[in-house]
Amino acid sequence: MSNVLKRQMPPAHPFDDDKLKEECGVFGVVGVANAASVVALGLHALQHRGQEAGGIVTHDPEQGFNSARRFGLVRDNFTDEDTLATVPGPIGIGHVRYSTAGSKGATQIRDVQPFFGEFSMGGAAIAHNGNITNAMALRRELIERGSIFQSSSDSECIIHLMARSMGRSIPDRMEEALRKVEGAFSVVAMTRTKLIGCRDPLGVRPLVLGQLGDGWVLASETCALDIINAKFIREIEPGEMVVITEKGVESNHPFRPAKSRFCIFEHVYFSRPDSILGGRSVYETRENIGRELAKENPVDADLVCPVPDSGTPAAIGYSLQSGIPYAMGIIRNQYMGRTFIEPTESIRNMGVRLKLNVNRALIEGKRVILVDDSVVRGTTSRKIKDMILDAGAAEVHFRIASPPTAWPCFYGVDTPQREKLLAATMSEDEMRDHLGVDSLKFISLNGLYRAVGEAKGRDASAPKYCDACFSGEYPVKPADMLEQGFEMKTAAE
Amino acid sequence: MSNVLKRQMPPAHPFDDDKLKEECGVFGVVGVANAASVVALGLHALQHRGQEAGGIVTHDPEQGFNSARRFGLVRDNFTDEDTLATVPGPIGIGHVRYSTAGSKGATQIRDVQPFFGEFSMGGAAIAHNGNITNAMALRRELIERGSIFQSSSDSECIIHLMARSMGRSIPDRMEEALRKVEGAFSVVAMTRTKLIGCRDPLGVRPLVLGQLGDGWVLASETCALDIINAKFIREIEPGEMVVITEKGVESNHPFRPAKSRFCIFEHVYFSRPDSILGGRSVYETRENIGRELAKENPVDADLVCPVPDSGTPAAIGYSLQSGIPYAMGIIRNQYMGRTFIEPTESIRNMGVRLKLNVNRALIEGKRVILVDDSVVRGTTSRKIKDMILDAGAAEVHFRIASPPTAWPCFYGVDTPQREKLLAATMSEDEMRDHLGVDSLKFISLNGLYRAVGEAKGRDASAPKYCDACFSGEYPVKPADMLEQGFEMKTAAE
Amino acid sequence: MSNVLKRQMPPAHPFDDDKLKEECGVFGVVGVANAASVVALGLHALQHRGQEAGGIVTHDPEQGFNSARRFGLVRDNFTDEDTLATVPGPIGIGHVRYSTAGSKGATQIRDVQPFFGEFSMGGAAIAHNGNITNAMALRRELIERGSIFQSSSDSECIIHLMARSMGRSIPDRMEEALRKVEGAFSVVAMTRTKLIGCRDPLGVRPLVLGQLGDGWVLASETCALDIINAKFIREIEPGEMVVITEKGVESNHPFRPAKSRFCIFEHVYFSRPDSILGGRSVYETRENIGRELAKENPVDADLVCPVPDSGTPAAIGYSLQSGIPYAMGIIRNQYMGRTFIEPTESIRNMGVRLKLNVNRALIEGKRVILVDDSVVRGTTSRKIKDMILDAGAAEVHFRIASPPTAWPCFYGVDTPQREKLLAATMSEDEMRDHLGVDSLKFISLNGLYRAVGEAKGRDASAPKYCDACFSGEYPVKPADMLEQGFEMKTAAE
Amino acid sequence: MSNVLKRQMPPAHPFDDDKLKEECGVFGVVGVANAASVVALGLHALQHRGQEAGGIVTHDPEQGFNSARRFGLVRDNFTDEDTLATVPGPIGIGHVRYSTAGSKGATQIRDVQPFFGEFSMGGAAIAHNGNITNAMALRRELIERGSIFQSSSDSECIIHLMARSMGRSIPDRMEEALRKVEGAFSVVAMTRTKLIGCRDPLGVRPLVLGQLGDGWVLASETCALDIINAKFIREIEPGEMVVITEKGVESNHPFRPAKSRFCIFEHVYFSRPDSILGGRSVYETRENIGRELAKENPVDADLVCPVPDSGTPAAIGYSLQSGIPYAMGIIRNQYMGRTFIEPTESIRNMGVRLKLNVNRALIEGKRVILVDDSVVRGTTSRKIKDMILDAGAAEVHFRIASPPTAWPCFYGVDTPQREKLLAATMSEDEMRDHLGVDSLKFISLNGLYRAVGEAKGRDASAPKYCDACFSGEYPVKPADMLEQGFEMKTAAE
Repeated sequence: MSNVLKRQMPPAHPFDDDKLKEECGVFGVVGVANAASVVALGLHALQHRGQEAGGIVTHDPEQGFNSARRFGLVRDNFTDEDTLATVPGPIGIGHVRYSTAGSKGATQIRDVQPFFGEFSMGGAAIAHNGNITNAMALRRELIERGSIFQSSSDSECIIHLMARSMGRSIPDRMEEALRKVEGAFSVVAMTRTKLIGCRDPLGVRPLVLGQLGDGWVLASETCALDIINAKFIREIEPGEMVVITEKGVESNHPFRPAKSRFCIFEHVYFSRPDSILGGRSVYETRENIGRELAKENPVDADLVCPVPDSGTPAAIGYSLQSGIPYAMGIIRNQYMGRTFIEPTESIRNMGVRLKLNVNRALIEGKRVILVDDSVVRGTTSRKIKDMILDAGAAEVHFRIASPPTAWPCFYGVDTPQREKLLAATMSEDEMRDHLGVDSLKFISLNGLYRAVGEAKGRDASAPKYCDACFSGEYPVKPADMLEQGFEMKTAAE
Repeated sequence: MSNVLKRQMPPAHPFDDDKLKEECGVFGVVGVANAASVVALGLHALQHRGQEAGGIVTHDPEQGFNSARRFGLVRDNFTDEDTLATVPGPIGIGHVRYSTAGSKGATQIRDVQPFFGEFSMGGAAIAHNGNITNAMALRRELIERGSIFQSSSDSECIIHLMARSMGRSIPDRMEEALRKVEGAFSVVAMTRTKLIGCRDPLGVRPLVLGQLGDGWVLASETCALDIINAKFIREIEPGEMVVITEKGVESNHPFRPAKSRFCIFEHVYFSRPDSILGGRSVYETRENIGRELAKENPVDADLVCPVPDSGTPAAIGYSLQSGIPYAMGIIRNQYMGRTFIEPTESIRNMGVRLKLNVNRALIEGKRVILVDDSVVRGTTSRKIKDMILDAGAAEVHFRIASPPTAWPCFYGVDTPQREKLLAATMSEDEMRDHLGVDSLKFISLNGLYRAVGEAKGRDASAPKYCDACFSGEYPVKPADMLEQGFEMKTAAE
Repeated sequence: MSNVLKRQMPPAHPFDDDKLKEECGVFGVVGVANAASVVALGLHALQHRGQEAGGIVTHDPEQGFNSARRFGLVRDNFTDEDTLATVPGPIGIGHVRYSTAGSKGATQIRDVQPFFGEFSMGGAAIAHNGNITNAMALRRELIERGSIFQSSSDSECIIHLMARSMGRSIPDRMEEALRKVEGAFSVVAMTRTKLIGCRDPLGVRPLVLGQLGDGWVLASETCALDIINAKFIREIEPGEMVVITEKGVESNHPFRPAKSRFCIFEHVYFSRPDSILGGRSVYETRENIGRELAKENPVDADLVCPVPDSGTPAAIGYSLQSGIPYAMGIIRNQYMGRTFIEPTESIRNMGVRLKLNVNRALIEGKRVILVDDSVVRGTTSRKIKDMILDAGAAEVHFRIASPPTAWPCFYGVDTPQREKLLAATMSEDEMRDHLGVDSLKFISLNGLYRAVGEAKGRDASAPKYCDACFSGEYPVKPADMLEQGFEMKTAAE
Repeated sequence: MSNVLKRQMPPAHPFDDDKLKEECGVFGVVGVANAASVVALGLHALQHRGQEAGGIVTHDPEQGFNSARRFGLVRDNFTDEDTLATVPGPIGIGHVRYSTAGSKGATQIRDVQPFFGEFSMGGAAIAHNGNITNAMALRRELIERGSIFQSSSDSECIIHLMARSMGRSIPDRMEEALRKVEGAFSVVAMTRTKLIGCRDPLGVRPLVLGQLGDGWVLASETCALDIINAKFIREIEPGEMVVITEKGVESNHPFRPAKSRFCIFEHVYFSRPDSILGGRSVYETRENIGRELAKENPVDADLVCPVPDSGTPAAIGYSLQSGIPYAMGIIRNQYMGRTFIEPTESIRNMGVRLKLNVNRALIEGKRVILVDDSVVRGTTSRKIKDMILDAGAAEVHFRIASPPTAWPCFYGVDTPQREKLLAATMSEDEMRDHLGVDSLKFISLNGLYRAVGEAKGRDASAPKYCDACFSGEYPVKPADMLEQGFEMKTAAE
């Protein structure tokens, strides 16, 4: 049951289009005066993880469970008192989403998480970041047995598995449900009194624990703790489930133990630069990537310019390492937002100018190094190169702060089909020619591992991160995708 | 899981407040070019049966099932091309609702029908007019077994019962589900290709069949056929299920046979005066009620005035029978609508004047007979009496076109609790004194039966109508209500 | 400077389209706690005089002058506390409008009255019902001298004339301005402390005075006094200007004396039936018109049916006089409102059914007298005749409660150009054949005068009313229209 | 006549609050297919000059003059085809505004430019950037003579002066009007066929000329030419008026010659970094300011961090000059927008975190140089210092890329009253203590002049820029302000 909501959806960005997209951010809090306000702030800090829609569920002893779900940004939907008054109570969870693994087309409001279910022992709500790789099979089986799905989301399977569980408490049912689920998940859930957090055995997606006064917070990233002035306690461990009540945090490990495979792309692009991952600020990691990139791929030039805004820390690192001056050669229009609709066909073709403008007087006659975080389809890179050359640059050298993206992600990231990935069909030199630049160099996978702190680079026999998008080595079998005809990497590749 | 939507709800009417409220109207069509447009028109004609919200589901071979649900009137929500374009296809059903048997407080958009379920053999949507009297027990059992309810509506039980049925076709599953359901129901449902209609064994709520070109229509009332120029074929029989495809209408009788007990209040107030019930226009029946009322309760007076708008046909009948001139002593503001919000506390007390105004120059010094369709709590009758006396009437005589409403309805009508019904606690004389009028007379139950065409009046041993609101004799045991403590009429009453 | 606001405008009514339209209603109050609330209620009661837009201006000693102007109905725009809080203070005036004498196309918000001007001695706001017949010439002259018009309304001339006056008080300036203005006007105006009302020398448009506690009210009709429970004091006299302060009402007669020529169509259609005009309820006058019509034009038939809703009182009068039973043969959908947009081209053709439905079972085989208030273009009459015949009526007889409308009105009423008026080009018999009915009869002009209380009918040498739309005799020369080529009645006509 | 629109206004920014605000941006185009689309793009590029509201006026040979005015951002209001279709035609002008010289409180939609007037020779519209310093006196005189003002804007004087001019063409009338006006103005105006641009004799506010195909463009800054790919031709000269038709550009100099006094703060903060002023990119000028600042005020530290986003170019310059590494120690939430409303009182106090977050892991234990463009009230500087210290910085050194702002601007910039300016009441050392930082240094006025290209610094006898906000030397007497009690700098200061 699809629905036509395209008009309400955020239009494609001229530039951000050509990025991998994190699909979700999750947040939960218990033991505060007005949970919904706190959840709204947390989701605002996680907005970079999903801009299409957001939702909040809370529970209040007198008014029971309430929810609010909206298309659009947190700041536009969850900040007026009228809306927040509809979700009262001291416990709440929330979710921001980019798009769904389920519906191919547009999202409906009923696809917007958190999902809620009424069980015989009471209600529960869950918010899920990640992707269930065996969702299709689970869904078929659940429908066969009489479950009625209300959304097209893979995440809804969890709530139906919980409904059918014989477990006597909601955490028990959640454990049972999550053991049937394959893939990547960081889940934040709630009952009337408990806040629950869980990461999949490999810990692909992030989830952190914080403390706010007497209350507790779960969030995808530490930047969501900072905004509410909560104290960062620790990361939830891979395979760990925490059940938090007013009494404190109870930790369980309900899954078969496995080695951690955290998503390395969180370091490259997804996480916010001011978040802390693995004990270090993401900003510093990215500056390191830029330094490593400069070591691996030096070039003689006049200026190092970032592709705004995600290329900035790596560009600074590249400049510091190389000694070539850093400069803002491309200026971003800060009023661009996500809602600009190009007025007419003829104007649309000058689309990129709505968002970015080249600093002509600065660029003219210069040899410019452009530092970007990744190349996906390559469409944006071409446009930026055109703008730089139009402005009179003498040379354009692309330096990319991640290895070639050659494989799709099936763990909660929106990636184009493999054949659309530039690096799936071209060598580095072919890409250089295709983009029409003077040089194009990617950081090596080993270089990236070094930059994130693995001094010896990548251990091919037991890599510490999920790097499937670069390596094609998938730590969890993508069952649904294989059923739909996806071909895994062969020995030859 | 309740939700706070009170601000979006239609505010109480100064006058309509004191009426019994039909809870729903249903409509379906198959075999037309643009089903949603037709459904919207049909629902507009049925708007008097529910003004709180409306919904449409359609199916299109290419775009599958789609739905649109909105709070407010059909004319305000389902008439622009953008909205109708979201529900394409040649088959569709719709629903307008007043309020729900489920949530006591405000309605949420997910309580708005039609409901949809995806089964292993495909999707189905249903729209329900009536009330399931064993919904609480059914719901408990379904949740225990793992069903997840998305709404607070009793009607959702039907779709979960269908999901759990082993039947191999959707009509089979619907039959099986409806056999487990007690109460009153007129259901319109659809699959990708079939339009299905069904009435409960007693046929408490109405449902009619019409033909529109090569297509077929199901609707609560014939006025919804007139608006689209469809031909009225016949009423669906009590206990009948029709399955309509492009090939034609297939009729089944899946329930144990029972004697018809159609709701007599549909004749008195619920149905539109231009609809046809039992072969006669509702307008004529109401005029007959007025004549019968004049025969039973004559009084010497100068003018017969209707309480607008529902008392009009009976007032005309009373005038024709009595020879006392008919006059519009009370004028209704045609721009009142349902959305007027009284501006301030002080102004609110003059609330009734927003909607009605007495024709002072006409009323002054006259003996006035006011004809109204019913007295529920009596609150409105008092206010109208005050207005008439303020305007200088010499005498005020109330004549009511239905017997005293002394019992609540559990079959799909919104009634106050028994103790709030004026006639449950007062005799006719006590009510007259309470209202402060010169005389107050109700039509007798026998008189009402005669007016609807039963020449001999009511056969107490086998009444032809459901008249529980007047007689306290409930043709279907109200199981959920008994569980909640409702006391049935005793032999003594 | 026109503007495209068509989408916000009320769509044409299938039926009301074919009526003359009153262009405005005015209201003012001084000496109450919250003037804006009172003005909103008054405008709501006057909504029948203009549904396109409304505006309120108030003055508060601390917050000065404030205004609120909106497209749409009073109930939808001026009833929430947030809006009313923007227009505080104890004195205020308001205006509802149908359309403007100025812009031919769509209205802009800046055409919505009241108009405001800041003069050297302080601000003033005015609301105008009527039409200035020399507005074009005045406007040209004012622009030539440096006035900048902000609206396309003829009424704005008044405020510019006031700005250029040398008068030392605002009432003085208003007198001076209105003496330069020709045409029909009932004006309500305000300064910081004074409420001012004025009617043109012929008193073409209505204006009444009421008392509300210690405060005073001016309104187009008495029904706007009833809604706020104000006491009706008297009509403002033709040519009278009243200046009301907290001390009381000061009356002046600044114009050259003239004989009253009140608009007779206010009795026929414009005013609300519960208003009092000339000491009698409009309802009774219309019932009288129906009686007179029955005397002049009897016919043998089975039923007298009104064309809802404006034909109702005359139909009741016709029935009472003729003895032929009154019946509601045509039922109006009370949820029609003004905002229904026909969904698609194919559906639009069944347009009339959105609003009206014939009571088939009642009409079938009957000889029906249809009573309507007027025939303008005749388009609606044809559609109603078709509906009645489709329903199986044996005969259809039209009886019209006004004489043939053969001339346009230039005094504040929206009329088609003369050649569009059916009666301008056809005789009564030709109209009957054109409409395709068994008979068609209009009340005579003498009959109409008798019905409004002139026992001897119309005195052709000194008629007591403006009846230009029937007679072609214009009491004020329509200067702008003559300049644009309108041809007055010749001796031959 | 004020109006309460506060709820629609952009809420105060936690940080941007403490900046001087440019009040307007203007744009015009003639000779293109769809002028409104081009104007919308141009205004989008000028959005930094005014975010409160925007307006567009166009002229089309068939549809005449049309306008659209809205509160909010260009991207949210002027990009859908429906809106742009209401302003058709090949010529158009537009305006974005921050706030008005007139109304102290909230803006009303009728204060939103461009203003329009109908003259005897046709209509004209004007858009004004700047401030008229004798507007109060002009307004008094115009009202005395019968002009009716519709807005509270100083700019409306121009259109009334034009209305009263005896000039025979609109450019003539505009010349005459502008000769009576004192202060700073860059005006873009239009008639049916002509685009007109004019700068005041001192050229305080910017205005540039561009070419777009066969058409011509006027804009406040060159970045508005870049977005539409127009060619930058030249700056309009101080005191120049250009009248542009399809035939070309006609240049006049209607005012008494004067020496240029361009606003130096445009270089510091107002203009976009990618615009070109005086032949050099604003970005480079600001980088120069940073270098100059480092030369004048060196300090030993670990990191140079910008206060985002306006401090960035100067911080880069400071880093390049000093050799201290540049780092993003403060991260801006890119989804902040202008519409975030803090949810509750308790949350509001953590307000700044909604927008900025300190990169804790980077800052901890470091000696940090913070580079900001200016200090106005100092409120923001304190909050940022607190955040940096909370994150564990060892030392905080503020370096400000402009001299102390000690005097208000009366030429089109929104400044606090003098007593609210930190530098008006404190010495540099007092400010340092007040802010609680380890050191605080401003660039000198001579240093600033050097950075903008005056090798010898400021010529005190004939300064090349308007630097009144720093020096207190006002090149145009602020007549209205003096009348209201403002005291000019005395010899002693």
